[in-house]
Amino acid sequence: MTDHPLKPETKAKLGQVSVATLATALFKRGLRHQVIQDVRPLSPKGNNMVGPAFTLRYVPAREDRNQLVEFRNPGHPQRVAIETCPPGYVLVMDSRKSAAAASAGDILITRLMMRGGAGVVTDGGFRDAMNIAKLDMPAYHSRPSSPTNLTTNEAIAINEPIGCGDAPVFPGDIVVGDDDSVIVIPAHLAEEVADEAVEMTAYEDFVIEQVQNGATIIGLYPATKEENLNKFAKWRKANNR
Amino acid sequence: MTDHPLKPETKAKLGQVSVATLATALFKRGLRHQVIQDVRPLSPKGNNMVGPAFTLRYVPAREDRNQLVEFRNPGHPQRVAIETCPPGYVLVMDSRKSAAAASAGDILITRLMMRGGAGVVTDGGFRDAMNIAKLDMPAYHSRPSSPTNLTTNEAIAINEPIGCGDAPVFPGDIVVGDDDSVIVIPAHLAEEVADEAVEMTAYEDFVIEQVQNGATIIGLYPATKEENLNKFAKWRKANNR
Amino acid sequence: MTDHPLKPETKAKLGQVSVATLATALFKRGLRHQVIQDVRPLSPKGNNMVGPAFTLRYVPAREDRNQLVEFRNPGHPQRVAIETCPPGYVLVMDSRKSAAAASAGDILITRLMMRGGAGVVTDGGFRDAMNIAKLDMPAYHSRPSSPTNLTTNEAIAINEPIGCGDAPVFPGDIVVGDDDSVIVIPAHLAEEVADEAVEMTAYEDFVIEQVQNGATIIGLYPATKEENLNKFAKWRKANNR
Amino acid sequence: MTDHPLKPETKAKLGQVSVATLATALFKRGLRHQVIQDVRPLSPKGNNMVGPAFTLRYVPAREDRNQLVEFRNPGHPQRVAIETCPPGYVLVMDSRKSAAAASAGDILITRLMMRGGAGVVTDGGFRDAMNIAKLDMPAYHSRPSSPTNLTTNEAIAINEPIGCGDAPVFPGDIVVGDDDSVIVIPAHLAEEVADEAVEMTAYEDFVIEQVQNGATIIGLYPATKEENLNKFAKWRKANNR
Amino acid sequence: MTDHPLKPETKAKLGQVSVATLATALFKRGLRHQVIQDVRPLSPKGNNMVGPAFTLRYVPAREDRNQLVEFRNPGHPQRVAIETCPPGYVLVMDSRKSAAAASAGDILITRLMMRGGAGVVTDGGFRDAMNIAKLDMPAYHSRPSSPTNLTTNEAIAINEPIGCGDAPVFPGDIVVGDDDSVIVIPAHLAEEVADEAVEMTAYEDFVIEQVQNGATIIGLYPATKEENLNKFAKWRKANNR
Amino acid sequence: MTDHPLKPETKAKLGQVSVATLATALFKRGLRHQVIQDVRPLSPKGNNMVGPAFTLRYVPAREDRNQLVEFRNPGHPQRVAIETCPPGYVLVMDSRKSAAAASAGDILITRLMMRGGAGVVTDGGFRDAMNIAKLDMPAYHSRPSSPTNLTTNEAIAINEPIGCGDAPVFPGDIVVGDDDSVIVIPAHLAEEVADEAVEMTAYEDFVIEQVQNGATIIGLYPATKEENLNKFAKWRKANNR
Repeated sequence: MTDHPLKPETKAKLGQVSVATLATALFKRGLRHQVIQDVRPLSPKGNNMVGPAFTLRYVPAREDRNQLVEFRNPGHPQRVAIETCPPGYVLVMDSRKSAAAASAGDILITRLMMRGGAGVVTDGGFRDAMNIAKLDMPAYHSRPSSPTNLTTNEAIAINEPIGCGDAPVFPGDIVVGDDDSVIVIPAHLAEEVADEAVEMTAYEDFVIEQVQNGATIIGLYPATKEENLNKFAKWRKANNR
Repeated sequence: MTDHPLKPETKAKLGQVSVATLATALFKRGLRHQVIQDVRPLSPKGNNMVGPAFTLRYVPAREDRNQLVEFRNPGHPQRVAIETCPPGYVLVMDSRKSAAAASAGDILITRLMMRGGAGVVTDGGFRDAMNIAKLDMPAYHSRPSSPTNLTTNEAIAINEPIGCGDAPVFPGDIVVGDDDSVIVIPAHLAEEVADEAVEMTAYEDFVIEQVQNGATIIGLYPATKEENLNKFAKWRKANNR
Repeated sequence: MTDHPLKPETKAKLGQVSVATLATALFKRGLRHQVIQDVRPLSPKGNNMVGPAFTLRYVPAREDRNQLVEFRNPGHPQRVAIETCPPGYVLVMDSRKSAAAASAGDILITRLMMRGGAGVVTDGGFRDAMNIAKLDMPAYHSRPSSPTNLTTNEAIAINEPIGCGDAPVFPGDIVVGDDDSVIVIPAHLAEEVADEAVEMTAYEDFVIEQVQNGATIIGLYPATKEENLNKFAKWRKANNR
Repeated sequence: MTDHPLKPETKAKLGQVSVATLATALFKRGLRHQVIQDVRPLSPKGNNMVGPAFTLRYVPAREDRNQLVEFRNPGHPQRVAIETCPPGYVLVMDSRKSAAAASAGDILITRLMMRGGAGVVTDGGFRDAMNIAKLDMPAYHSRPSSPTNLTTNEAIAINEPIGCGDAPVFPGDIVVGDDDSVIVIPAHLAEEVADEAVEMTAYEDFVIEQVQNGATIIGLYPATKEENLNKFAKWRKANNR
Repeated sequence: MTDHPLKPETKAKLGQVSVATLATALFKRGLRHQVIQDVRPLSPKGNNMVGPAFTLRYVPAREDRNQLVEFRNPGHPQRVAIETCPPGYVLVMDSRKSAAAASAGDILITRLMMRGGAGVVTDGGFRDAMNIAKLDMPAYHSRPSSPTNLTTNEAIAINEPIGCGDAPVFPGDIVVGDDDSVIVIPAHLAEEVADEAVEMTAYEDFVIEQVQNGATIIGLYPATKEENLNKFAKWRKANNR
Repeated sequence: MTDHPLKPETKAKLGQVSVATLATALFKRGLRHQVIQDVRPLSPKGNNMVGPAFTLRYVPAREDRNQLVEFRNPGHPQRVAIETCPPGYVLVMDSRKSAAAASAGDILITRLMMRGGAGVVTDGGFRDAMNIAKLDMPAYHSRPSSPTNLTTNEAIAINEPIGCGDAPVFPGDIVVGDDDSVIVIPAHLAEEVADEAVEMTAYEDFVIEQVQNGATIIGLYPATKEENLNKFAKWRKANNR
């Protein structure tokens, strides 16, 4: 899928930084549309979702192809996606930004969790959202949506490049979600972006501390005054960062 | 209003199933647009709202007909709706999918609760939402909206067929809400749909348990493998379902 | 900026009334669009935000003017706004109703709080929203938005008249937010509106109590029956209102 | 329906003025939302549509009530509306601002024309729009929409107060359309508004002529300079206005 | 691609009927979402576009993959689509319902025409629309859009199932466009639907003639009165239909 | 206002190229959002609008500040904008992307034309659009809008940086409109972009001719095959381009 598998140390780094920081790191590289727009966690988890993307694409449902009997087909792409998404991956669904019907429900998402999925994202909505919210796996959507996915969505293809919330998602891209939102990092950039974001986070943590102590942001954020860089150097030593 | 009053045992059954399950039961019958789109509970209640629909219809407000003095009229349709909605009914408001101004506020909704209302739904928004959220009666809307309803809405008619969140609502239809969303069941289908949903829920509860124990969904959900039906038969006995 | 500074006693009164009540008081005066549409508190605070408006205006970002290096400029309007917003004021941002990129993040908003800001409102979204939610200063937005503001927004002007969520905001207008929403009171009306809202709130509190005890709203809300005004007079005495 | 039938001379006056001028005349009277938003003529007619409103209300279609067989029912409200709309009236349809399916097609609209209808307006869309555009009766909609109305719309009620394009429409209100848009004049105001609009139009025609000859608008539009009123008096005489 | 190639006689039939009539024929078969929503012809052609679908799918553009240099790649999917779309086919583009940037421009669409394309449809917009409008090949879009497609769209895949304007489109489906809109007929239904639509059109033409002569629609449309069927039989003979 | 006045020869060049070509030239320079989204000419003029931007900014109307009497004030910013926009300039209005009420009407736009204005653009709508369409000056908007601008818009500031249709517009930027849409060229880039666009247009005209004669676009557009550059060189000579 990709020549850039996610290294454990990169994954660990991406677990400690915010989506906002990652968005800035990608902005520096000219990538401005990697945040998945208008999705939110079903419940705040307090820690990050991190994993490579495994994708599912929906098209508008044609009624004759989307009766309940379709689910009896073991080859139905939605079910196959759930059963073949590799452990540690994030399942990302292109639901055409519509929550008029569901992208999936609690049974499938529980199965994904049991199989070791790192999380799930749709730019539509989940049914049984109140149950999915309680699972030990992060999930992001636009809003709860109770109608079965057959009502408006046909699962058509697995692991193709897709759009999700107006962000481009290629299989194997690294997906990171925090309690605010979700970002998609091109696989080949994950390592350098993770490194840079860890550095940025150290500085931001230092800045927040300074600001909480009354410092002005001028000259501090960003660090245009030499003295702030010196203070930061000391802070890093003192805080083992 | 309807020849299909809600039986207590049907009401009880509808209290135990999810809107998602009911949506699938209606989908089987060719009804695909019965979920009220884009409304949410002001606060999760942990149990279902169930009751026949009593409706209120708004039209865009014409300024000369919608000054504060109108509320002094004891025949104002909004107030009449609150005072005549039968106990056990759900008041459903067609606010033209706009939360630019309120559909109602905490005084009226408290009165509705005191009169025995089973709940309230608008495809607009409530003012004093922070107070309505604390009431012992479920309420659903799109988002909080503080301007008085006179600003954009004129209450014009009571207990007519309406649209609410793009769902058709006929007086007497059975309205069910859970912590995710709200669905409208045509009155004549309520009993059979309730029965079927209880059966579906038993199977879904069994499936979730299987999946939590590591089962694949293929052949299980839906049950295309004989063995799963056998397991389910045993599970029902063991669990008194 | 305005000839109508906010008096401490007016501020105190505005702290005790709801945005809904204020919206009705302004509606009586012919002002129907003063509620900022589609913003919500990042976290409920349980008490009101009150302060005069200090404004920041964004225009769509032109890429050559909005690289990260811009933030090194001590004169960048976004940073200047944070560092010059007077203590006790509410910073109101015109983000063109778009949360595609952030209006600001936790470092700047923490700084605003440390400088004595009374609160912050944007009709876009904040990044680091999960952190801003925990601050001791109220903040309102449309939804979390992680991309840096440079992505789509250029901070262009400070303390001009702006639109925010389709409401007109003039510097010095009095901004009040509760756990539902935010309203903008023209400065010259703040005192009389505060007085009237306190009176209205007394009556509404009385009404809620009556309704909770089983009273009908007809003749009570509004008070078209003499007896209710008498009851209210007694209630005020008994409750020191 | 209304105590204010449309007098022939009022109708004649309304035929000579623009919707823009009428909107200003209603604005003076505090009515700000009488223009039907986002509708346009299927073809420019070069003269005004004028007539009292006869209304048809749609609700979202429930599939079991909206099969093609319904059209065989002579009492189907859509067909009844076409066959009972009085000659000289404008049929105004509340299609819930959705053109996902049609409000009507060329056969019905041709029949309406043959029966003497003054015009037709929907805030949805017409099918066979290319044919309706060629009829000798004005028609206004949002955009062409080919699916049969049964797909999403159920005609439910005739001659009730409705909303159309966010404007309130009461049966008997006077509807005026020009090549730009459509406005709804409350029946009791039609006469005085028509008179005033004719006066305003005379002045506007004078102003346009002055401006085409190089005059500034300051002092002229509106007429704050005495000399312009004098010029206008002469112009009226010279032009028999 | 499909086992149901478009027969010349079916194509001829589909050339004589309206999209509205075809929509009703599909509605009878339970297919309610086959009209491509919110697209319109760049110029009315006065005759139908008919051909099997050849599809192109766009995803949101990632900046590093969408620089102008990409167009130098002879394998760029947009250009390959233009150069491989079979003669007689309609190129249908999934542009994610966004006209923020172009789907294609006049050079590519002219090339498509020269290669024998039957037409082109996008749910986004064309650049150089004023030129494409003058071509001898029908084109449909949402609105003109001048930015190069690289700005927001990456052409990613050819001849996959896609969504276009919320309609499902499978390669080989038969696409028909008239001066109002565009519909997608599943390939296996094209023949029977064409036959039925020709019959329906004959009756509709008869009805329009009757209505123009003063007939009521009750009993005529649909034909619930025997006498109308008799009249129609005569009319067919007289008109060779 | 700007240090880069529009030279007559640059203006002439910009009159001969399309907005699409200019958009590509700006895209090469990293500017991707300079096309004003969702505006269209009131009538096609067949030639380009070109001129520096003079801006007018609207905020949401507060009712007490926006009564008809305001127009009697000779200092009302809307009227001042019309009377002070320099000859040859394009008046660009930030109407907050709303056509709920007008940005201006035919009297003011006629006056602008008489004063030598090069054109007018709003991201809202014009009233009297049917008359403005006939003027000898190009005008662009979203759709006709008959309500007076006071209904929702207050003209607040002249010649500030604004947003218009999500494009940034700085006073003095060069605005170019064709029959498709409108683009904003930063003043300092106008000359080089004009030069480049003229070159690009020559090549595009050559390409269209080749394609009309049956050439493939591969290797031709863009010119990756040497032979096409040679052909182009001959074509230029032959055609004096």
